[in-house]
Amino acid sequence: MNLQNNYPIILASGSPRRKQLLEQIDLEFEVIPSSVHEDFTIDLSPTEFVEYYAKEKAKHVAQSHPDKWVIGADTVVVFDAEILGKPKDRDDSFQMLKRLSGNTHQVYTGVSIQHINLGLKKTFHAVTNVTFNTLNDNDIYYYIDTYKPFDKAGSYGIQDWFSVYVKKIDGCFYNVMGFPLALFYANFSALIPVEDKG
Amino acid sequence: MNLQNNYPIILASGSPRRKQLLEQIDLEFEVIPSSVHEDFTIDLSPTEFVEYYAKEKAKHVAQSHPDKWVIGADTVVVFDAEILGKPKDRDDSFQMLKRLSGNTHQVYTGVSIQHINLGLKKTFHAVTNVTFNTLNDNDIYYYIDTYKPFDKAGSYGIQDWFSVYVKKIDGCFYNVMGFPLALFYANFSALIPVEDKG
Repeated sequence: MNLQNNYPIILASGSPRRKQLLEQIDLEFEVIPSSVHEDFTIDLSPTEFVEYYAKEKAKHVAQSHPDKWVIGADTVVVFDAEILGKPKDRDDSFQMLKRLSGNTHQVYTGVSIQHINLGLKKTFHAVTNVTFNTLNDNDIYYYIDTYKPFDKAGSYGIQDWFSVYVKKIDGCFYNVMGFPLALFYANFSALIPVEDKG
Repeated sequence: MNLQNNYPIILASGSPRRKQLLEQIDLEFEVIPSSVHEDFTIDLSPTEFVEYYAKEKAKHVAQSHPDKWVIGADTVVVFDAEILGKPKDRDDSFQMLKRLSGNTHQVYTGVSIQHINLGLKKTFHAVTNVTFNTLNDNDIYYYIDTYKPFDKAGSYGIQDWFSVYVKKIDGCFYNVMGFPLALFYANFSALIPVEDKG
């Protein structure tokens, strides 16, 4: 049994990692990225922030597709209560990784599922603690120059070379990659109208 | 900077997942599976078991390649202090997943690195707690029939469809896939003779 139902599904995100994760759980869907962009100066807590932008992204795409399920998601990295965005350049990337070195930070992902015609929507979030070993400066430069993590919140990808420094996580791994699969599956299963399941 | 040194590296394991993980961290190596097989009736604790077999596997291959680094690894799933092997058939797989449903189990991986001519060896292990949501029987059969997890200790793969049921982990994610990358990197970095690094 999987999550197919009588309605098509849209992933409102251009992230190749989110696409890969939804494919991993055998979901059939179409990708239509929203044009919503985060404003990091907005005064919201991390939980409010990721839920707000997940909702905005889903809503934005759902308005043109009221007959489909639309899934929005937003991920941020938080250290010392500060939301870290994507690094601006090589130096910013280096400073960000130095801050995270030897410490524990949090990754938050908000997910919003909306179906306008069915009048159904649900928004939720996951938090995972991620602990890094102490980074070696040469390794940081090797990583930045080889992997160019400029499109990644927090400046690292847990699923690439950087995994050599991820000592442990506490929570959902896939949340750190950008989409909390188990939490999504439980929420979406509960949301699909009973007659459509199976 | 990565882990290349003046000596070739052999992965003494036929696991495609371990091969993929070592490629993920840019290691260059050759695969030569050992012919060592676990005896689950042996009287060892999980820690002793995975370290013993990691050592045996590495030693077995290193004997024919004394001039190379040889990496052995062994992974088991432990529930209620019992080591779970690979499922024998569909029913065994179902019973195993039912036992793990809604509960927390442990995944242990032992790793052994050996270089006979350098007289260097190191063996260590990682433990990760894995918590499943409650599994639905139909989903268990869908999973077994679609993914045929008969080559997997504990009867699941954390990196495939089954991730919809992995609520959280506490520890190293890659350990659950069969190879604790961060622990390996720290140990191997410390083992490589200083003149060979860089």
